[in-house]
Parts: sequence; structure tokens; C-alpha cells
Amino acid sequence: MAALLGIDIGGTNVKAALVSEDGAVLSFVSAGWSGGGPEDAVRVAARLVDELTTGRDVAPTACGCACAGLVQTGAGVVRSSPNLPTWKDVRLSGMLSDALGLTVWLENDANAAAYAEFHVGAARGAENAVMLTVGTGVGGGVVVGGRLYRGSHGTAGEIGHTTVDTDGPECVCGSRGCLERMANADAIVARALELIGSGRPSTLTGRAGDGTLSSSAVGRAASEGDPVAIEALEGVGRVLGVGLANVAQVLDPDVIVVGGGVAEAGEPLLGPAREEMNARLSGCEFRGPHLVAAALGETAGVVGAALLAIENLD
Amino acid sequence: MAALLGIDIGGTNVKAALVSEDGAVLSFVSAGWSGGGPEDAVRVAARLVDELTTGRDVAPTACGCACAGLVQTGAGVVRSSPNLPTWKDVRLSGMLSDALGLTVWLENDANAAAYAEFHVGAARGAENAVMLTVGTGVGGGVVVGGRLYRGSHGTAGEIGHTTVDTDGPECVCGSRGCLERMANADAIVARALELIGSGRPSTLTGRAGDGTLSSSAVGRAASEGDPVAIEALEGVGRVLGVGLANVAQVLDPDVIVVGGGVAEAGEPLLGPAREEMNARLSGCEFRGPHLVAAALGETAGVVGAALLAIENLD
Repeated sequence: MAALLGIDIGGTNVKAALVSEDGAVLSFVSAGWSGGGPEDAVRVAARLVDELTTGRDVAPTACGCACAGLVQTGAGVVRSSPNLPTWKDVRLSGMLSDALGLTVWLENDANAAAYAEFHVGAARGAENAVMLTVGTGVGGGVVVGGRLYRGSHGTAGEIGHTTVDTDGPECVCGSRGCLERMANADAIVARALELIGSGRPSTLTGRAGDGTLSSSAVGRAASEGDPVAIEALEGVGRVLGVGLANVAQVLDPDVIVVGGGVAEAGEPLLGPAREEMNARLSGCEFRGPHLVAAALGETAGVVGAALLAIENLD
Repeated sequence: MAALLGIDIGGTNVKAALVSEDGAVLSFVSAGWSGGGPEDAVRVAARLVDELTTGRDVAPTACGCACAGLVQTGAGVVRSSPNLPTWKDVRLSGMLSDALGLTVWLENDANAAAYAEFHVGAARGAENAVMLTVGTGVGGGVVVGGRLYRGSHGTAGEIGHTTVDTDGPECVCGSRGCLERMANADAIVARALELIGSGRPSTLTGRAGDGTLSSSAVGRAASEGDPVAIEALEGVGRVLGVGLANVAQVLDPDVIVVGGGVAEAGEPLLGPAREEMNARLSGCEFRGPHLVAAALGETAGVVGAALLAIENLD
């Protein structure tokens, strides 16, 4: 059976899948890992690939690997990665090629996810699309006329580090008031804790004191109608909407896809984001992009990497 | 002699030029006008073209027209224009074609200027470039891989209406804290007046009371060392730098060109803008774009329109 291989290496998980040439996931596996050195990541990936192929009549024809961080796509090098802090100038595609016996195309994970959502996910049929992945970090990918747009230094789509508040709090990147700093998972938890701290009643109150409150718990509480959770998501959603409006003004895409762990909160987050975005765009004649939730979930990275491998390795 | 014709219709001037196929201005004329109806604009343009061609052995082979506002390029229609408020759904290219006896390619003026700076101006040799035109308004144009990028609804590059201050003052577009509102000609004058009002000594003090202070006067005073003028340009330059950093994060261009009347202030404005932009980009490994002043001045629109006409009307 012909199939593509997709791998996705993040800070806490390695994922792998067999993907058909039209982007369907044939088989998917993942493993938690400690975020160690690149040799460890390659070992985990090779084990997952083994799991996918053993006992199956399958010979992968191309392999793509998505990786968090600043990636030099053509050279197959991970220059650095905020989620894999020990990685510096890692020749990841070469290492994976040696381990798997296949040429490997390397891509930034947010780019790979954007490419997958464009071709087989929530942005299918669009001309130009942007994908934002909102979790601990906020990553972005840009597709222009059906092709991934990487920019002049390979770092286009760094939407998480656009400024939404000039004098805002310091970001890990060294700038201030970045979208990532103001609208990531931590920002949702911080807003909820602030509201609870001001005496607002909430089903989350019990977890406020012990530092275990997570953004997904806030998301679940919102879906159950907890007013504090709803307000926290609304506040962060509005900030997200400011960042999305900026992207829309610059790129004028037909679709913006929002994915990542935080986006699983759904409309309690995306509704206010859409409203804020549209309000900021409305004056210039209305022509805002559709803002939609991602369709591919945790498989976006492996699917995008696999599809990019056939596009680029022919 | 073979030549292209370029026309540029703005809120206060109509310009026209004969342009060579490699983008050199052979002859340039302009006329102030009152910003009346489209028939008036066409009449002024036809008179200028007459002036350019009468008595010369020249037969323009293609004509491009740049116009301020929301332009439907393919259809040749100006949908609306903040600087020409009575214009609604004007079939400008058809009207000009009838008057001139030539097919006319219509383009947004900031796009035309960006295209000209990319091909024969300050962004020559770049792969991806952005141009910002800073005057009464703040317009933008985006060139990706050598081609004008217009987005999905023809409105990409609306950088003037990206938010730099979420809760900032209201903008003409209906949003808040837009780059245009915070960094246009009026913003420079307002900063200077504020500093003078706080008792700071300045050579501009005499003009502060009578409402005649212009941003170009502030620019001239800065070049002569006036500390209030320098500080006003620095403040606005920093705001501009925030907007430019946002564009750089999304598009990762090799060059950003800043033109328009306000940019004539030069380094007292661009220096702080560059510093602020670079500071906001530095954390993500340095790969900021070069920020340079426009090279083509008031001819950018006519040159870009003429070059776009040969690209699109063949």
C-alpha cells in the first residue's frame, strides 16, 4: 500500500501517522516524551513509525516532519525552539532520514498545521488562509494562493508575537504586549483567577488556590455555563480578535482557522474574537475573513508535514 | 517613441507621466484639483495627458491609473474613497478609456506605489516587500515574490488600520487605536502642540496658536535641531515601529519602504521607528527587514500604475 509518513515533534509529545496522498489519516500514534535531546526525539519517532508499519503491507513513499521552533525548511535544520530549549542548529531531517531510510522534509509545526487545514481541513476551498494555533504558545501559518508562505527569512506568520498592547506585559520573546502573552492558555487561567480573586462565585473556586487550574478546565466550566469561565474566555477572545483583525488588515485572507488546545473552548472563545475582529474591520467596508475552528485537531501537524513532503520532495 | 502612461488621482492632486517600459519617468506633470466628481478628475487627467503628448512623437502603448480608495482592480471600479467622499462605485477605468482612447488598468494608489518601489525604487532586488505611505492617511502595499499581493477581497496591505493601541482613540474607520490615527501627519502636529503646551521652548511656538502648524514644518524644525520637533517625531516614529514590527511578524519581508509626505522628515522619524521595530523583533532571533525611505517620491503612483498596466493588460 502506498502511503506518506507524517511526524510531529513538540515539547511534550511525538506523533506519527500514515497519511494517504489526499490527506486522509490511515493510522495515527503518539507518545508523550520528556522533551530531551534530538537523538531521543528521533528514537521515539522511529519507534512510532515501527509501530505504524510493522505487520502492515505498507511502504511509505515520502516523509514529512513538523517541529516546533525556528526551522530552516530547505536545509532541514531546527535552529532553535522555545519548547525544546536545548536544541540548537539540529540537522533533524538528516537524523530522521538516517533512522528511517527515507528522505525527510522538515517544516515548522504551525506552518504544517496551516497547510493541512488549507488542503483537507477547515480552510478547504479558500484562496488565502491563515491558521492560528493557540495553546501555551500562539503560532501561526500563512497560505497564499494555495502555497505555504514562509517569508524572506522563513519566519512569516509569527502572529503570536505581534503587539496588541504597546505597553503591555513582557513576553518570553523580549517584546511587550504580544498576542501570545495576552491570549494564550496562561492568560485564560490568569483572567479566571483574577475574577475569582475579586470574589465572583464560580465552580472553579476550589481549584483556584492550589495552582492546578488549567485553561481546559476553564473551557469545560464555560461550556457548563460557569459565568466566571465565560467571562475569562470572552476577555481573552476579545484580545485574540484584535490580533486577528491586524492579520486580516495585512493579509485579507478569506478564512482564518483557530486551532490548538485553547481553541477547544469553542464559541465561548471564538464568538467574542469574531465580534471584536469584525468590529475593527467594519469601517473599511465589510470584507472580513471567516473565522472558524480547526477541523483536524491533533493530526494537523502530521497531515500537513506529509502533504508538504510530496509537494517538496518530488 | 514607445511609452507607457501613468495617472494618479488623489484627494488634492492629479498626476500624469510618460514612463518607459523599464520604469523611468520621461515626463511628469501634475495639477491641484478640488477633489470633485469623477468626471472632473477624468477631465483634469485628460488635460494632463494632452500636455504630456502634444507636440511629441509619442504613442502610449498602455495606461495605468492609481487611485486613492477601495479599488476593484479587475473590474476597474473605485468602490469608495475616504479622500473622495462623493465617489461610489465609479467605473473609472472605463471613463478614462473613453477619454483617452486607451485601455486603462486601475489600481489602489498605495499598491501602485509599492509596486514601483519594488521594481525601480528603494525595494529593488527584494524578494518580498511592504510599502507604507504615511501622510494624512497611512496606506500600505504588499509585494510577494515580485507580484502585488491584493488578498482575497482586494484589500490586503491596509496596514494603516491595524491596531497598535487596543483602547486608543477612535479612528475615521470606526475602529480604535489604528496606526493611521496614531502615526499620521495630524499625530505629529498634535504631539508637537502638546509639548509646546506643556511649556517646552521651540521654534514652532509662534505657529502653535493659529492652527497653521503642519507636519512638514515639524519635519523641517527637527532637521534644524528643534528639540520639541525631534521629540514629536521620535514619539510618532516609535508608534510607527510597533505597526512595522507587526507587519514584519506576519509577512517577514526583506524590505519595508516608508514613503509619503510625513516620511520626508527622514531619520528623525525613521530612526526611532527602526529602533522600536527591531526591539520588538529581536527576541525571535534577529531577522528584521531593512527599513528604508522611499526613493521615488511623488512619482511612485504613476510609475507603479504604468508598470502594472503592462503586466496586466498584455
